Amino acid sequence: MTAQIAVLNGDYIGPEIMAAGLKVLAAVTENQNFDYALHPVPFGGEGIDKMGDPLPASTLATCKQADAVLLSAIGGPKWDKAKRRPETGLLEIRKALNLFANIRPTVISPAMRQYSPIKNEDPVDFVIVRELTSGIYFGTPRETHETYALDTMRYTENEIERIVKVGFDMAMKRRKHVTLVDKANVLDTSKFWRKITARIAADYPEVTYDTSYVDAASMKIIADPGQFDVILTENLFGDILSDEAAQITGSLGTIPSMSKGTDGPALYEPIHGSAPDIAGQGIADPLSMIKSVAMMLANSFDRQDLSDTIMTAVDKSIDDQIVTPDLGGTSTTDEVTDTIIKTIKKVG
Amino acid sequence: MTAQIAVLNGDYIGPEIMAAGLKVLAAVTENQNFDYALHPVPFGGEGIDKMGDPLPASTLATCKQADAVLLSAIGGPKWDKAKRRPETGLLEIRKALNLFANIRPTVISPAMRQYSPIKNEDPVDFVIVRELTSGIYFGTPRETHETYALDTMRYTENEIERIVKVGFDMAMKRRKHVTLVDKANVLDTSKFWRKITARIAADYPEVTYDTSYVDAASMKIIADPGQFDVILTENLFGDILSDEAAQITGSLGTIPSMSKGTDGPALYEPIHGSAPDIAGQGIADPLSMIKSVAMMLANSFDRQDLSDTIMTAVDKSIDDQIVTPDLGGTSTTDEVTDTIIKTIKKVG
Ligand SMILES: CC(C)[C@H](C(=O)O)[C@@H](O)C(=O)O
Ligand SMILES: CC(C)[C@H](C(=O)O)[C@@H](O)C(=O)O
Repeated sequence: MTAQIAVLNGDYIGPEIMAAGLKVLAAVTENQNFDYALHPVPFGGEGIDKMGDPLPASTLATCKQADAVLLSAIGGPKWDKAKRRPETGLLEIRKALNLFANIRPTVISPAMRQYSPIKNEDPVDFVIVRELTSGIYFGTPRETHETYALDTMRYTENEIERIVKVGFDMAMKRRKHVTLVDKANVLDTSKFWRKITARIAADYPEVTYDTSYVDAASMKIIADPGQFDVILTENLFGDILSDEAAQITGSLGTIPSMSKGTDGPALYEPIHGSAPDIAGQGIADPLSMIKSVAMMLANSFDRQDLSDTIMTAVDKSIDDQIVTPDLGGTSTTDEVTDTIIKTIKKVG
Repeated sequence: MTAQIAVLNGDYIGPEIMAAGLKVLAAVTENQNFDYALHPVPFGGEGIDKMGDPLPASTLATCKQADAVLLSAIGGPKWDKAKRRPETGLLEIRKALNLFANIRPTVISPAMRQYSPIKNEDPVDFVIVRELTSGIYFGTPRETHETYALDTMRYTENEIERIVKVGFDMAMKRRKHVTLVDKANVLDTSKFWRKITARIAADYPEVTYDTSYVDAASMKIIADPGQFDVILTENLFGDILSDEAAQITGSLGTIPSMSKGTDGPALYEPIHGSAPDIAGQGIADPLSMIKSVAMMLANSFDRQDLSDTIMTAVDKSIDDQIVTPDLGGTSTTDEVTDTIIKTIKKVG
């Protein structure tokens, strides 16, 4: 069986780091009994430029037939005035592929500790499980009138149940601790989340379950991030907290994410933007994309072995200070990528 | 004229730090041609215990007639199962007094730098101007049904205009820079805020005006907080970001806030909670309440001089390491308070 991978190259630095990720994919799968086919299709700004649409129907069709989607950073000033901006394509593809669970690892590894902007020295290793296809991002009505505007944060029982299960299942494979983040002292939707989560938590007696208000959570992520294992939360809170969490690692340019549904392809992408300011200079950090490839191999293709090979090579490149300027280094995108590939070939 | 001050003592450590604040108020106003009368009234948990209501009608009446309201930390586990919890009283008093602007200074002073959990060494001195009586906190409909729940984020033009003006007026007295924080790539209300804010910004040609998405802002507060002067934002984003901002100072226990409307009394309160775990031990940090008193003197009673006297004495107590355990010290609430009063008396 050949793994079918849709490739959405992204904008500005997007194609540069995608190229790096694909080179690593080629290297790590060589003679590893893993066949794959790449299907590059336009999306985001590239979609607008080539087909007048951030999510062209043909792109969506390709993604739906794929086993996994690799997406690079999209958007940028070029499309600021576009009627449907690149980000719209992102929201639409999430919805169309039913990618309701966004998983973001937040790790401060010993190699990365020096880049962290916080003084904390405890081990940090948690995952944010963010609901991705509902809440205020998609709720109706959403209206702009002459003298007022409104958005609706809306959640159904089913939408909450399925993401809560993802969170608790993930905790079972980790340190068995789930923290639900909400604003249950104010919001009806949060109270509803609490009710449903408490019910499901009862099915996971081994998992320690607690809750935190979102304002308090935004403090804890800075003051004591080591306390978290799985942070489970709704779409908007997850957006804010996962970026904050990424920041404490000091290495935005190195963080991958996975978005998945119950079936159909999962989508893997860097968490950062398309960095128009450094595009074309060959110095974009490829680690987020390379780690997205690793996440894909482990989660969509059951090849934890290949994923581990990549991650070990990535850590070695950081230890050896072969890093791009965002991590204080002087290496180029290509140099980092080639170093990682060399390590992979030695191991393989 | 006698300044009429409503005093809402709060719960757990609330009364302990209120007592400290009032002692400092007495000391700093001695022979300063400032007469005041205190009107202690039950509120929050105390309101529930004494009158069955977190915001008794008589308390609200007293506050409405006052020139300023001093409020200490409220809430706690004792009232977790209450039908109307202490926090409800907080939301109601904000609405009833029309306190639509919440102002929170975020400063890392040289004396406080050592307590900051972030490595950043740049000067940090910004103010968060948070809309406090609208948005998803108060928007209707808000409903919980059998299989779904919803909240509504709603803003009118008037509600936005008045808070935006507070933000720009504040910037004019500071470094003349306003950052509007929103989620305009997703929310209709955010786009509406942008439209109105851009219009009002045109009336302040001296003010540099920019915007940031809330997820990006949550990163910048950690990575480069020195870039901000005035952060202007809606209720929910302000709740999250102002707590995050408080955390980077490493001194939650020292931060005051002001909530005000166009007329009527303003309200001054610590930003932290009632800390049930340390209540009754005499070790609560009184600085947040003492600085709330200073903020009140400057803003409600036009006595910047008395406010400065307090703030100078507070900084000296920190410099001299006369601080409570939250700042790594061994002093008690009383010792800190008395030290500050001694400094005030020497200066006065
Ligand atoms: C681009 C934007 C719509 C998106 C979001 O808010 O979900 C982004 O911030 C993210 O987190 O993937
Ligand atoms: C207690 C709670 C309702 C309140 C809020 O969210 O506004 C608090 O967090 C605050 O910021 O004053």
